[in-house]
Amino acid sequence: MPKIVNHEERKTLIAKSTWNVIARDGLEGASVRSIAKEANLSLGAVRHYFNTQEELLEFAMGLVEEKVTERIMEHTKQPQPPKQLALNMLMEFIPIGDRTIEMQVWLEYISYKLRKKELEEDSVHQGMVSMMRKLNESGFLKKDIDLEEETVHLHALVDGLALHILMGIVKLDEKRIRALIARELDRIFT
Amino acid sequence: MPKIVNHEERKTLIAKSTWNVIARDGLEGASVRSIAKEANLSLGAVRHYFNTQEELLEFAMGLVEEKVTERIMEHTKQPQPPKQLALNMLMEFIPIGDRTIEMQVWLEYISYKLRKKELEEDSVHQGMVSMMRKLNESGFLKKDIDLEEETVHLHALVDGLALHILMGIVKLDEKRIRALIARELDRIFT
Repeated sequence: MPKIVNHEERKTLIAKSTWNVIARDGLEGASVRSIAKEANLSLGAVRHYFNTQEELLEFAMGLVEEKVTERIMEHTKQPQPPKQLALNMLMEFIPIGDRTIEMQVWLEYISYKLRKKELEEDSVHQGMVSMMRKLNESGFLKKDIDLEEETVHLHALVDGLALHILMGIVKLDEKRIRALIARELDRIFT
Repeated sequence: MPKIVNHEERKTLIAKSTWNVIARDGLEGASVRSIAKEANLSLGAVRHYFNTQEELLEFAMGLVEEKVTERIMEHTKQPQPPKQLALNMLMEFIPIGDRTIEMQVWLEYISYKLRKKELEEDSVHQGMVSMMRKLNESGFLKKDIDLEEETVHLHALVDGLALHILMGIVKLDEKRIRALIARELDRIFT
């Protein structure tokens, strides 16, 4: 009888092993072989998900996007005031605890794509643009703001904080980071 | 008669070749050999500056810091109001034109150091802390601000903008980027 494989569990195991290898050895050290070893699986089992280093990186990054999207969707299911919801969504990009490795994978991905000159539209920024547009159309934002500038400003602040937290520069705790972002939201919300 | 070598020129040539190779092939592709080829020099001439990949990266990053510091020092020589000076200094971190490659080298450096868990105090952040402290002590900043939070906020905004400009996310031109940062300074200056 063939072994029954839970594909979702296996995919998650391989993704997390891929993240671990990238975070430790960089893309340089990440190969089907090194990831199979990390996940304690056969080469064939890993090759089912990716064959080349390029596919490996897309796989790892795809899983980061999936996890972040899942967490953000969870917030939208909770009834809460729009400013609170926006804050909770933005906090999902701040690398705290387990999420540190997600951001490290993201950094490696960005560097790789910049080298290859293959960086496409950023899905997070598109999400940010769409969130701000909806908030504005629903009348939650001040009338006199420049929507494009405020979107650029808010996203830059959140990603800058995320980067500096990852780098260990920022000594503020999670509560104070929340307060910093909340203050920015206060500035643009009615 | 031995050839006379202008060491400063040669150092700059090797540094720029190193930046080019890192920006194109990543750290993965950067070696004494690939950089000697890019600079059209002998292996020995390059080995005078670095031997290992680690030394190569420190050399490349050291030159980035040198260039940025030089440009910032130039601003301090011009008589101008403190808010204007702060704005001009902060704009030096925004990757426009030639400076794009500096930021790409910086990103590769950060990723490498994060993997090795060797990231030390960030010299730019230390500069930011010291600039804000001086402005505050000279009475140029509002009395009721939290200096630590405002320093974190300002640096995050500038680096977030820089990262998003590098990624091609931000469509605002240099003038509007200046205006965004100037608005932040307006908020904290008296």
